[in-house]
Amino acid sequence: MSPKITTELLKQLRQVMKNPRYVQEPVQAYIVPSGDAHQSEYIAPCDCRRAFISGFDGSAGTAIVTEQHAAMWTDGRYFLQAAHQMDSNWTLMKMGLKDTPTQEDWLVSVLPEGSKVGVDPFIIPADQWKRMAKALRSAGHDLVPVKENLIDTIWTDCPQRPCKPLITLDLSYTGVSWRDKIVALRSKMAERKVMWFVVTALDEVAWLFNLRGSDVEYNPVFFAYAVIGMNTIRLFIDGDRMMDPAVREHLQLDSTLEPEFRIQVMPYGSILSELQAVGAGLSPKEKVWLSDKASYALTEAIPKAYRYLTPYTPICIAKAVKNAAETEGMRRAHIKDAVALCELFNWLEKEVPKGTVTEIIAADKAEEFRSQQKDFVELSFATISSTGPNGAIIHYKPVPETNRTLSVNEIYLLDSGAQYKDGTTDVTRTMHFGTPSAYEKECFTYVLKGHIAVSAAIFPNGTKGHLLDSFARSALWDCGLDYLHGTGHGVGSFLNVHEGPCGISYKTFADEPLEAGMIVSDEPGYYEDGSFGIRIENVVLVIPAETKYNFKNRGSLTFEPLTLVPIQTKMIDVNLLTEKECDWVNEYHQKCREVVGAELERQGRHEALRWLLRETEPLGRVQ
Amino acid sequence: MSPKITTELLKQLRQVMKNPRYVQEPVQAYIVPSGDAHQSEYIAPCDCRRAFISGFDGSAGTAIVTEQHAAMWTDGRYFLQAAHQMDSNWTLMKMGLKDTPTQEDWLVSVLPEGSKVGVDPFIIPADQWKRMAKALRSAGHDLVPVKENLIDTIWTDCPQRPCKPLITLDLSYTGVSWRDKIVALRSKMAERKVMWFVVTALDEVAWLFNLRGSDVEYNPVFFAYAVIGMNTIRLFIDGDRMMDPAVREHLQLDSTLEPEFRIQVMPYGSILSELQAVGAGLSPKEKVWLSDKASYALTEAIPKAYRYLTPYTPICIAKAVKNAAETEGMRRAHIKDAVALCELFNWLEKEVPKGTVTEIIAADKAEEFRSQQKDFVELSFATISSTGPNGAIIHYKPVPETNRTLSVNEIYLLDSGAQYKDGTTDVTRTMHFGTPSAYEKECFTYVLKGHIAVSAAIFPNGTKGHLLDSFARSALWDCGLDYLHGTGHGVGSFLNVHEGPCGISYKTFADEPLEAGMIVSDEPGYYEDGSFGIRIENVVLVIPAETKYNFKNRGSLTFEPLTLVPIQTKMIDVNLLTEKECDWVNEYHQKCREVVGAELERQGRHEALRWLLRETEPLGRVQ
Repeated sequence: MSPKITTELLKQLRQVMKNPRYVQEPVQAYIVPSGDAHQSEYIAPCDCRRAFISGFDGSAGTAIVTEQHAAMWTDGRYFLQAAHQMDSNWTLMKMGLKDTPTQEDWLVSVLPEGSKVGVDPFIIPADQWKRMAKALRSAGHDLVPVKENLIDTIWTDCPQRPCKPLITLDLSYTGVSWRDKIVALRSKMAERKVMWFVVTALDEVAWLFNLRGSDVEYNPVFFAYAVIGMNTIRLFIDGDRMMDPAVREHLQLDSTLEPEFRIQVMPYGSILSELQAVGAGLSPKEKVWLSDKASYALTEAIPKAYRYLTPYTPICIAKAVKNAAETEGMRRAHIKDAVALCELFNWLEKEVPKGTVTEIIAADKAEEFRSQQKDFVELSFATISSTGPNGAIIHYKPVPETNRTLSVNEIYLLDSGAQYKDGTTDVTRTMHFGTPSAYEKECFTYVLKGHIAVSAAIFPNGTKGHLLDSFARSALWDCGLDYLHGTGHGVGSFLNVHEGPCGISYKTFADEPLEAGMIVSDEPGYYEDGSFGIRIENVVLVIPAETKYNFKNRGSLTFEPLTLVPIQTKMIDVNLLTEKECDWVNEYHQKCREVVGAELERQGRHEALRWLLRETEPLGRVQ
Repeated sequence: MSPKITTELLKQLRQVMKNPRYVQEPVQAYIVPSGDAHQSEYIAPCDCRRAFISGFDGSAGTAIVTEQHAAMWTDGRYFLQAAHQMDSNWTLMKMGLKDTPTQEDWLVSVLPEGSKVGVDPFIIPADQWKRMAKALRSAGHDLVPVKENLIDTIWTDCPQRPCKPLITLDLSYTGVSWRDKIVALRSKMAERKVMWFVVTALDEVAWLFNLRGSDVEYNPVFFAYAVIGMNTIRLFIDGDRMMDPAVREHLQLDSTLEPEFRIQVMPYGSILSELQAVGAGLSPKEKVWLSDKASYALTEAIPKAYRYLTPYTPICIAKAVKNAAETEGMRRAHIKDAVALCELFNWLEKEVPKGTVTEIIAADKAEEFRSQQKDFVELSFATISSTGPNGAIIHYKPVPETNRTLSVNEIYLLDSGAQYKDGTTDVTRTMHFGTPSAYEKECFTYVLKGHIAVSAAIFPNGTKGHLLDSFARSALWDCGLDYLHGTGHGVGSFLNVHEGPCGISYKTFADEPLEAGMIVSDEPGYYEDGSFGIRIENVVLVIPAETKYNFKNRGSLTFEPLTLVPIQTKMIDVNLLTEKECDWVNEYHQKCREVVGAELERQGRHEALRWLLRETEPLGRVQ
């Protein structure tokens, strides 16, 4: 990895920062955040502006360029990578370290008095704008919106914004028609006395209209906005995708519908002017609902007194609670995914001892097996295929420079998943193809105890996921071990593999309560720097629980694993399990046998079936 | 309980709301919060203004009086009590119910356009002012500070502000001299580049100067403020308490000290003008540190650009971490407290069957036994002595109207504590003097399992208490039971029985991480409305833990119970305990025997000693 030479680019950027063609007044600093105009976690190549200007292409980072300096803020996961990818024009700001200044403090320390700091108002979320503007103002500077993105002006070979064909999903996948979703949304709007709702997150647009796309890798979404009024529906989307007869039919664009269900299709780029027109035409007490993470540009389009901002939109919350069709789809997707992984692990067991399987080969093989399954679309994230010390790098992705060969002497960690038309998967298994050490087994067993503690937890209705996080850690904590990531995230239904508003993490407090139908991951781990990584991850469905006293009819919840892939018993120190935990493993494996076994049989995958049967032999507990 | 007739009072209040002697312009609404000028949890009689104007004397509630209406906001604990105590002039606003408007929304709905809403700026915390002012402003109204408290102007027989003698604490109690505390505070101020620190919380003033008082019942504090500069110390306090030679000696008021340790004593009422003078004399970059819960009046005395506000002050955080002298004092106090409770329970065991012991008699007897112990000062809160259905009322305090007789047929819950000169106690035990039912034992045992799960928890340094809350609930949750209060609160050292910044609750997220030396309560419970209440509460000390792998030298923590009072084994269903839990109970009881037994012996309390030995027989677990 050699750094990107950015001297010329920075020179150009500093010129446009003063060029009256692009800025009303010169800006003394320009901020280049990571995101896109929809605050997406995964972004399209045309939105990788921070990577373009700096060379650093990790998933999180903010660049700030002033007349004299160029600085990059990123977190501990990326210190090494950023240092390798950036040339000497850049100063690395290591977030989380005590002496690292915040972006605001740094700006204040380097800027001449009365400076202007520019940023693309479409890329910066309104809440971040507010914080930054306040800090700068109190030091005598101004944060100013620069309408034209300055990186785009110098990015001569910038890829085009993707505009790929859409996939329509019928009721058998979605359970609810887009019309009924609009009706439900309008009823939520009426409850809050709101006249308009602006859909800015890509997965929320996709979910609302029962459409999927492939504009962003791993996320089946497409670039679009929507503005829903009590009597109007406007969809802002580009390209000839709306010419596709299947899409026209799906959205009933050519039918005579009641006016309140007629979709007006408008150009993607017209969202701002249309929203400004909405803003200008509001009567007193007419409010417009936006996510508080919507871009500053769109938020400002609505006069402050008319804004109704919430951290989670009603679509985000409705989308999180899967209906019967979605749940069944997720089950099917996970069975197919398990079939692919049984094939993979069976194959690895044979091939690894030969010393020819690298992390990349294993990842590719996993994709190959998955792609053989019905309704496979793409992977749901970059496969983490890591062996030995690479396993301790939590967000590792094998590249030729780091690619390690799997062996019978090292632990192998595979965190992978796929998008199927009926559901999204995300599963981690940790395997040893030789003989694990007692210490490796001990650590694995604590992680397993944590995984079971969450999966088998029973809790009252209304409980927030973050209250379950410590259950996953208790066994590790007892021995003085821990892991530095959350325990679980929401999972979309043929949508983003990470979604809100629920999760299981010590870090959040603002999560919404868990409710039946929500789907989250359960993925505790343990990482020994320089040696190995362990993680056991299932996707689990929140279901009602049966309890003796049922919380005085408040009701209770627990989890049902959707992931049905054997947990390697070779790695378990059975003596560290309680009887209940042992029973949990055996029952889980019994279910893998029955459900996945039947599918392997049906698909005629007999060798993988034999592997499954071997791997799911009941644990015998030493009494 | 008959309601207080408030017609005349409200008429008078509405008159002063328009009287130019008290208000610059008439106010159309007047807010009467619960608190005092120090945001104390417990308040003095002269500060019970809301109770005076409404009749409702629960611990939490806010009254708002307009020209037409009088409304009272309180929470679920007090719906019944408030309804009983208030006459028909008042509307009860039941907080937490869906249809109850917020104070701001209600004001907006009833006020004529462009109204002024008055409040005493000394009673309202700055953060509450900000929220309320913003909401009113956006609806065209104004929140205005009314300098003279309007309730005080009509409260003709208002009790005087207490001004009781002070207690000086020497190094054997405090471990650190007030001079060294000032030095440490100034070093924190220097770290944050702050020139002044304003001490507004009563327990923080008391802790800083190693003084105690008795101006507020149960809390050994006194009315005072302090303003600490880098070179000056100002103490704002009234009365002839500063004439006491012991106090003068303690504060070295008559010695020739270095100027930076000379304490300037000033009248309590001069805090505002003195602080305004400080505010007016600040040079650029000179900041003043205040709690963000300080009153609006004091916060406003400092121009906005010079304020440095934090949720927890450095005193609050330093005070929470007890030093060796304080910890030893707390241990001693808890041993004495246990002696008193052994006497009490031994006495109850003999007396209850006679049918002559009421809740009030039992509470008085507990106080009597406590008062026999060395250095006893007063109770640390109103004793919760409750039997049968009264036990299910979480904040119950027996009064003649509710006073129930203890019997061999009902569960008895006693939550009580005391202030000793060497420490503060708070302990709950749940007893049965006859034969508990299987269901009562089952519930008790789940609560015990939760208590042990927290008490024996091991967790890494830096963990916040709220992450442990679910451990206390897990056993209850498994059977569909729960309790609707937090699991623990910080405990002062001969100071307030409830203190920040740590605790164990699902409700907070802003708590500071637990560290060795902090002291909290561990008090899960279970409440069956109309039948019984169960709670098991120990005060526990955070101590370093020994673990196998020690979190890669991050270190780990656990708890040591300071409370050493037997947990009634008759109430335990041993079959529901794990072997580890059984061992925990037996080891705990062994420690009670050794430590408290020795003290009972020393005090010649042989009958109570025999009771202790009987009650701490090891549990025999049915294998």
